[in-house]
Amino acid sequence: MATSVKVYGPPISTAVSRVLACLHEKEVPYQLIPVNMAKGEHKKPEYLKIQPFGQVPAFEDEGFALFESRSICRYICEKYAKQGNKGLYGENPLAKASIDQWLEAESHSFSPPSSVLVFQLAFAPRMKLKQDQGAIRQNEEKLKKVLDVYEETLRESRFLAGDDFTLADLSHLPNTHYLVNSSDMGELFTERDNVGRWWSEISSRESWQKVVEMQKPA
Amino acid sequence: MATSVKVYGPPISTAVSRVLACLHEKEVPYQLIPVNMAKGEHKKPEYLKIQPFGQVPAFEDEGFALFESRSICRYICEKYAKQGNKGLYGENPLAKASIDQWLEAESHSFSPPSSVLVFQLAFAPRMKLKQDQGAIRQNEEKLKKVLDVYEETLRESRFLAGDDFTLADLSHLPNTHYLVNSSDMGELFTERDNVGRWWSEISSRESWQKVVEMQKPA
Ligand SMILES: N[C@@H](CCC(=O)N[C@@H](CS)C(=O)NCC(=O)O)C(=O)O
Ligand SMILES: N[C@@H](CCC(=O)N[C@@H](CS)C(=O)NCC(=O)O)C(=O)O
Repeated sequence: MATSVKVYGPPISTAVSRVLACLHEKEVPYQLIPVNMAKGEHKKPEYLKIQPFGQVPAFEDEGFALFESRSICRYICEKYAKQGNKGLYGENPLAKASIDQWLEAESHSFSPPSSVLVFQLAFAPRMKLKQDQGAIRQNEEKLKKVLDVYEETLRESRFLAGDDFTLADLSHLPNTHYLVNSSDMGELFTERDNVGRWWSEISSRESWQKVVEMQKPA
Repeated sequence: MATSVKVYGPPISTAVSRVLACLHEKEVPYQLIPVNMAKGEHKKPEYLKIQPFGQVPAFEDEGFALFESRSICRYICEKYAKQGNKGLYGENPLAKASIDQWLEAESHSFSPPSSVLVFQLAFAPRMKLKQDQGAIRQNEEKLKKVLDVYEETLRESRFLAGDDFTLADLSHLPNTHYLVNSSDMGELFTERDNVGRWWSEISSRESWQKVVEMQKPA
């Protein structure tokens, strides 16, 4: 597949999978470049040139390099505005502002506790690391409060930023997927009427199901 | 001053001050609406209608409500594109993508450790709360690593996203201000050649100096 778009990193990484879901929604062909994190390839000088913090993903399009999954997603939506899901990042300034607002809520309210829980509940056992029960309890409490706000929002509208599935919803897929499918905290989502309905709708999108397939061990 | 723009919250709040600095750069007149946080006004039902997480700032423009300081800043730059500092959020898609990338780095790499340090070092003493020495040490180490990356970036370019002062730099002002001026960790910034040069340049902007004035006790 001849394409100028390159994504560096493994699909099991939550931040990488956010970018892949976005590329699928926008029907943008891409090349996935493996980064062997077990061997520390993400800390090598060549890699640090495109991701100076030594994290995945890194991204290139026609030689233009970018890092940070949510800024990569915004870029993909702007650059490929006319293809795939055209409303993913809104089609007017007010719609875009509402999407941005919930993307930021995901970054600052949802992601901090959910990332700790994903690490502790889904990754630590695979990596044979001891779980930090204090961190688990503390972040479960924080996440519950965030999901109480989401429950109210999703009572009023079908998706976070209104009637359409957008980048704001998409950005929640990676962490929620692990919590629902690889932890005992799935009910935080599935037992809430509106969060549960929303999760079942967004997670069944073809764009995300393709990512889930890519995450399965070969 | 007749204006449709309203910002809710006290200027000493880092997130509120981010929005104020942006409004000053864009020369957008605004009304500052006090929120008495000591009295818990940010948790009252009327306030939760515009900021469902019960935090400051909240924002309104011609009746359109937004929360999350960085999404408010993006909105202000888009809506008032033709006035004030026109390059604040870039003037072409690639410039904007680079700015977004460093705004996200601020959100995900810089803000988490620096916010803990601001709270522990600048606010806890004023609030007569006991400082958590473990949290201070751990977040100091994290922040140092982040600033090592910034030092390299700022060796190559005058500002984070290139030759111009942008939203990416602006977003660092609130936390850095407290760390440099109200903690004993200012040297983390001022003793690094390029971070120090950058800090002295961005913090002396008129837009930010106006915020600093507003933060002084009446
Ligand atoms: N805010 C970054 C986070 C990237 C991130 O945390 N990546 C993880 C994997 S999901 C990583 O590379 N961890 C290895 C490390 O930090 O050394 C983004 O969204 O791109
Ligand atoms: N991510 C939010 C953070 C807002 C925030 O943390 N605000 C603080 C003051 S700087 C607050 O309202 N704290 C009170 C609380 O959380 O109850 C933003 O950038 O707007």
